[in-house]
Amino acid sequence: MTEELDILITGGTVLTMSDTFDVIENPAIGIKDGTIRFIKTVDNLLTHQYTAREILDASHSVIMPGLINTHTHLPMVCFRGLADDLPLMEWLNNYIFPAEAKYVNRDMVYYGSMLAIAEMVLSGTTTFCDGYFYESSVALAAIDTGMRAMPCQGFIDFPTSDNSDPSKNARIGEAFIEKWAGVSPLISPAFFCHSPYTCSPDTLSGIKKIARTAGILYFIHLAETRDEITTIQDKYGNTPVRHLYDLGVLDDKTVGVHCNWVDDEEIQILADCGTKVSHNPESSMKLAAGVAPIPRMMERGITVGLGTDGCASNNDLDLLAEMDTTAKIHKVTSMDPTVMDAQTVVKMATRDGAKVLGLEDRIGSIEVGKCADIIILDMNKPHLTPLYNHYSHLVYAASGYDVTTVIIDGKIVMRNRDLVTIDVEDVMEQVRKIGENIRKDRSP
Amino acid sequence: MTEELDILITGGTVLTMSDTFDVIENPAIGIKDGTIRFIKTVDNLLTHQYTAREILDASHSVIMPGLINTHTHLPMVCFRGLADDLPLMEWLNNYIFPAEAKYVNRDMVYYGSMLAIAEMVLSGTTTFCDGYFYESSVALAAIDTGMRAMPCQGFIDFPTSDNSDPSKNARIGEAFIEKWAGVSPLISPAFFCHSPYTCSPDTLSGIKKIARTAGILYFIHLAETRDEITTIQDKYGNTPVRHLYDLGVLDDKTVGVHCNWVDDEEIQILADCGTKVSHNPESSMKLAAGVAPIPRMMERGITVGLGTDGCASNNDLDLLAEMDTTAKIHKVTSMDPTVMDAQTVVKMATRDGAKVLGLEDRIGSIEVGKCADIIILDMNKPHLTPLYNHYSHLVYAASGYDVTTVIIDGKIVMRNRDLVTIDVEDVMEQVRKIGENIRKDRSP
Repeated sequence: MTEELDILITGGTVLTMSDTFDVIENPAIGIKDGTIRFIKTVDNLLTHQYTAREILDASHSVIMPGLINTHTHLPMVCFRGLADDLPLMEWLNNYIFPAEAKYVNRDMVYYGSMLAIAEMVLSGTTTFCDGYFYESSVALAAIDTGMRAMPCQGFIDFPTSDNSDPSKNARIGEAFIEKWAGVSPLISPAFFCHSPYTCSPDTLSGIKKIARTAGILYFIHLAETRDEITTIQDKYGNTPVRHLYDLGVLDDKTVGVHCNWVDDEEIQILADCGTKVSHNPESSMKLAAGVAPIPRMMERGITVGLGTDGCASNNDLDLLAEMDTTAKIHKVTSMDPTVMDAQTVVKMATRDGAKVLGLEDRIGSIEVGKCADIIILDMNKPHLTPLYNHYSHLVYAASGYDVTTVIIDGKIVMRNRDLVTIDVEDVMEQVRKIGENIRKDRSP
Repeated sequence: MTEELDILITGGTVLTMSDTFDVIENPAIGIKDGTIRFIKTVDNLLTHQYTAREILDASHSVIMPGLINTHTHLPMVCFRGLADDLPLMEWLNNYIFPAEAKYVNRDMVYYGSMLAIAEMVLSGTTTFCDGYFYESSVALAAIDTGMRAMPCQGFIDFPTSDNSDPSKNARIGEAFIEKWAGVSPLISPAFFCHSPYTCSPDTLSGIKKIARTAGILYFIHLAETRDEITTIQDKYGNTPVRHLYDLGVLDDKTVGVHCNWVDDEEIQILADCGTKVSHNPESSMKLAAGVAPIPRMMERGITVGLGTDGCASNNDLDLLAEMDTTAKIHKVTSMDPTVMDAQTVVKMATRDGAKVLGLEDRIGSIEVGKCADIIILDMNKPHLTPLYNHYSHLVYAASGYDVTTVIIDGKIVMRNRDLVTIDVEDVMEQVRKIGENIRKDRSP
């Protein structure tokens, strides 16, 4: 009997990123109904058993799990390059906050997200976790483009463009979960408390309580800058991590974003609580916020995923570039070239990213039964020649542009660099118009 | 009367990188006989005055000087990804040196250089400075591909694959200069003493004497690792920079490569001598060698250019990626987001790179009378949208792949991403064969 597959990928090399890091040369990968049905070698494929609506030839290519961006603010692409190389507070108070107050609205969030998703797909990302205003518009953009997403309802203790009354936070959070839970296999809603310095202890623990009841993740910007440490120490007599620990919000469904300034005892607290970490090295370098002690965290068993942060502080959403920076910054910071080897970094961007988002049963590796979130990179390029080690090339030499094909939930979202689900010229035009208004406004 | 141009570029935005950083919107740039003949605006172009053999439409693009790689070892592309994430001495002694001893020959150097030049052109580099064995084969590859190059005869105090008798160093150096001086406008030969720890005081000063007589540049790996500081201190009772100063080899035609470990007094010595610096942040990060105090050097007026180093320690030759890392690593190292602003970093990769190579009269900016070394980048891309600031996008968001067209010495070397002078499939095949032998040899 013949089974009809949606997609059959043949040839090349698959880095499964399974827990044994299986690598299969000349594979045949069958995909149906969003799921990986089998992984054989081409030699063992009995072709009469299968037909496929689409066959993808991956010769000279690497097939791997799609990259997972554990932290970003997609609509901030609209502010990409608006203000750089400035002191953090001047950047925030004179540029980003005023621009957000004036220009953030439902359309800006939707079109910004569409552009950001285009950029992410073009550079091999298949899942993102986002925190911003009008987060339902981010979720909508993900559904419209076929992208996997963890949109987070944000919480902060002052009025914002999408919520004039912070006392309604709890109700808004519950409504967000109700709206998005179970709507699409692509969408897993979560919560994002902005930070220990913008959320009161009541907000932090109240929102965590709702998250626990709903069984969803809880993100928070944590220990990003030295100033934050001083602020929280002055206000609560404790460092940010200890402050959160005392409030009872650290557990295995909490994710600390950044964690640049944590001491050994705090690392142990995070490890003991099962709290995960989202590492965004390029943003923290560009803002001169600091370098997180990631190798020490991983030694203690903390799961660390990678993120790009928003485009106002990076200024791109390219996880392959972030992988390169991750490997290099920790080598030079620890003065040890053996830390953050290439395979570990690829794991952070795939399997560990899935664990950070609590989605490891569904994504993060290429294994039978998992969702088909798969990218294919063409290795037949001057800058990827010769090829001794696939992990090395992915981390130290490959570019987002080397990704040729992107499959999310079993559907082709990019084929030979062509975006299938996004009218990219139209989206760029929409965002250019938004940018034109911001620019005019800033001109003397 | 009508003048016939070789190339006329119209439209887009030109970042001239002149000393006043002139930016011209919708320009018309005329090129003839390798030289920039005029830079007008399209509106002021009297079309009846000119015909052009080729007209390049640069709408939605940035036109800028070609990038200048002030330090690399091109043929090491053959070892790209062979060994990473290892302690420095294990990497050198167990992998790189044995591979070099066995596989470096004239063909490996030529084909390795061809592949490296392909990669560099594809990512916007138009000039490189190289130090390796069989350097005449590097020069030949540059001529065959139409690339601008400063090939350096290397000197080291032990036998190498291309020189079994180091006592002949001086004679070999003179012969190299004689061979290459004046052969081609593309080639400017120079010398490269490997380092203070592999060259005796006699070698260092003897070779400098020949360089002075010939009026050529003199490069040296300098203060790269902490171990080097200890070694030189133990051997000569002084730090590397002071050691070279005492030997009289520091002047304005000497270039120190790396200079990661220099104190304030040494920075002042380099500044006072007019010595230039080649900064290769990604290599020094990957090898955990250190971070050079570049902002302090530039404060004292030292001219600093960028380099990628060789592909065994980077592992690519992409200067746009190096620019991004340069900006970010110094911000986080100095905990000051205002250092290394985007415009400064673009200047390092163009105008200042030209100064480091002593070629500032000919290249490094787009000005009438200078050589036409020009690159065009397509800015109509999701990751470059919207566009507030060209320098910001070049440093923080652009990729080598965004370069569409490369002109070197007035000739088109890449057109719409197609390499004009290189049969890239053949070159990749040649280097793959070299890699295949190295791989077989390393298998158990």
